[in-house]
Amino acid sequence: MDNFNFYSPTEFVFGKGRENECGAYVKKFGGSKVLIHFGGGSVVRSGLLDRVKTSLQAEGILFEELGGVKPNPRDTLVYEGIRLCKDKGIDFILAVGGGSVIDSAKAIAVGVPYDGDFWDFYSGKAQIRAALPVATVLTIAAAGSEGSGDSVITKEDGMWKRGAGSEHMRPKFSVMNPELTCTLPAYQTACGATDIMAHVFERYFTNTTEVEITDRLCEAVLMTMVKETPRVIEDPNNYQARANIMWAGTVAHTNLVGVGRAQDWNSHGIEHELSGLYDCAHGAGLAVIMPAWMEYVMPHNPMRFAQMANRVFGVAMNYENPTDTAKKGITAFREFLRKIGMPINFAELGAKEEDIPTLVEKFGLGETGKTGGFVQLTSESVRAILENAVKASL
Amino acid sequence: MDNFNFYSPTEFVFGKGRENECGAYVKKFGGSKVLIHFGGGSVVRSGLLDRVKTSLQAEGILFEELGGVKPNPRDTLVYEGIRLCKDKGIDFILAVGGGSVIDSAKAIAVGVPYDGDFWDFYSGKAQIRAALPVATVLTIAAAGSEGSGDSVITKEDGMWKRGAGSEHMRPKFSVMNPELTCTLPAYQTACGATDIMAHVFERYFTNTTEVEITDRLCEAVLMTMVKETPRVIEDPNNYQARANIMWAGTVAHTNLVGVGRAQDWNSHGIEHELSGLYDCAHGAGLAVIMPAWMEYVMPHNPMRFAQMANRVFGVAMNYENPTDTAKKGITAFREFLRKIGMPINFAELGAKEEDIPTLVEKFGLGETGKTGGFVQLTSESVRAILENAVKASL
Repeated sequence: MDNFNFYSPTEFVFGKGRENECGAYVKKFGGSKVLIHFGGGSVVRSGLLDRVKTSLQAEGILFEELGGVKPNPRDTLVYEGIRLCKDKGIDFILAVGGGSVIDSAKAIAVGVPYDGDFWDFYSGKAQIRAALPVATVLTIAAAGSEGSGDSVITKEDGMWKRGAGSEHMRPKFSVMNPELTCTLPAYQTACGATDIMAHVFERYFTNTTEVEITDRLCEAVLMTMVKETPRVIEDPNNYQARANIMWAGTVAHTNLVGVGRAQDWNSHGIEHELSGLYDCAHGAGLAVIMPAWMEYVMPHNPMRFAQMANRVFGVAMNYENPTDTAKKGITAFREFLRKIGMPINFAELGAKEEDIPTLVEKFGLGETGKTGGFVQLTSESVRAILENAVKASL
Repeated sequence: MDNFNFYSPTEFVFGKGRENECGAYVKKFGGSKVLIHFGGGSVVRSGLLDRVKTSLQAEGILFEELGGVKPNPRDTLVYEGIRLCKDKGIDFILAVGGGSVIDSAKAIAVGVPYDGDFWDFYSGKAQIRAALPVATVLTIAAAGSEGSGDSVITKEDGMWKRGAGSEHMRPKFSVMNPELTCTLPAYQTACGATDIMAHVFERYFTNTTEVEITDRLCEAVLMTMVKETPRVIEDPNNYQARANIMWAGTVAHTNLVGVGRAQDWNSHGIEHELSGLYDCAHGAGLAVIMPAWMEYVMPHNPMRFAQMANRVFGVAMNYENPTDTAKKGITAFREFLRKIGMPINFAELGAKEEDIPTLVEKFGLGETGKTGGFVQLTSESVRAILENAVKASL
């Protein structure tokens, strides 16, 4: 186990009807003039936005509104949000929505106290040193952004998708009412579930040894997702399954399941190029990329994949041939994805084989560049992974 | 799953040599004049206290010292600490030690800004509304106090052992260097491991259904303990096993593994009377009480015990007779305790059967009183549990 810091100071306010307590929590964490940031009309139509506003008004908290966040949230709206906050003297940002809305809110939050271009934080040019406080009312179990210090934004000019991270970006509180996720279409529910599992897998496949506690915690989240996801696909109103998934999504991404070990994140990196190019759902892109990546890197440590296969998917251990167990684990993962309605190859995602050179180039390794992680990747490896994703079948 | 709040704002600073960063973290969290609170001479002899002081001095932080905390920490020293803090204008308390030292530090922290007797918080007379900031340098993996808002203090007059809890008591940061635990005697190591497992079991046995995520997280911690504890008993210098146990101990008690469900805590309650009366180690008391409690309550829900037996201890599921699986799980737990050197009955603990009426009376249910939890207990049930603990054998 490596040295680490673990710091997750977000207060999670979980359960039925908790959005009605928003105002009290904004007050607890010092907000007096709030920007309510949201996406499309669903939070308006569902009445959620009204309940949030009522709760803020009950505490005498002033607010402005900025909607319009799209999936793969854009830099353009972030600039608009920063201007609005500066003009109106906003001191607290409340994101009402899913990962895209929260990521956009975090970008606005770091942009307000910064004199330069907020994109500097995402392009790696500058380090985040301050932010307005952010809080969330979560409506989709997926990104884990409600409990993380990370944010991913897409630059509209060129569709560059890049991430930033900082302690300052961690939400002060996150309201999580599983009821709010019951109206999600099955496809989005499944995309979210895939993203949650990917957040765990990115941490699970590591070269750090002797990390039993985090291995077991990873497996706990994965087993929960394997059990509960098909239940909500079958019955969208299953509150209990929704609740288990929603909390699993947070546990998957506060970094509790990843401390003390090297992590990978190459699947996320490659997928960002896919959703950047095709504007597809992040989870759907991960469903295609993650198993393709697994196939490519598995020979590096078949026993780790056999452990996953056995402990998470219940594949019987083949002691004479652990690689066989490992392969069956990857197949079990793809079968699970198919069962919940996810694409498993380029064609099903709507991606094109002829774009592979573009995707490899955008990932930006150059001819000799290598990424870190479980297995270091060259441009050639990324190409091979994408080719796995083209030909994947069941 | 029930509604819940989860809030664990402690920054965990984990790994080799991290105690040398104490000063920087005290500064980060606003301390300028620190009370260093500790127990016996071991932290002096090991050089730990010197390293902590050097780190504080490097940041220009002033400090006072108060040692002498005993296991089952006493109210008398707490009063002394409160006086010292008030006299010297202390604004931050740094506990260097195990659970007893940390609990004592928390009691001092809530006592300083309170006009009345700090014991009011422990007797249930008053609610905690403020505290000096507390931080810890942990030397024993056991109590989980480094990541909890709880504290247990023993009133010397009558040896009453009582607990208090509050958000205000949560440490700002906790330095956790597993190396510091390598010098612990095997008995204390095993007591700590038992306490960690008990913290999980108290949350695991619940009547709340549909809590898959927390069940799996509980089992993750328990399986880690089952694997790693015998390794450190055999080789005290096994850093990796020490590290896994130390982090498992924190995860076991931030309440992450207990949210969204009713919890029990009757075994802890009964054990407090044992260690209050005999001044025995809390973990040793739990090793005797916890399985005795399990035997008593198991018929209430044999399937929950079968799940534990199968998932945690690898007992094969007897589908024709789940109660048999459940019983084997309790036996497996006792065998595990025996293997790591824990007592499993009254005689091995040094407790006396003839004290049972005193213990029942001190637990204080009266003739009709009931505690909450998995199974409500009457005085008669407590007597039966203690009798199980007398006659336990393997």
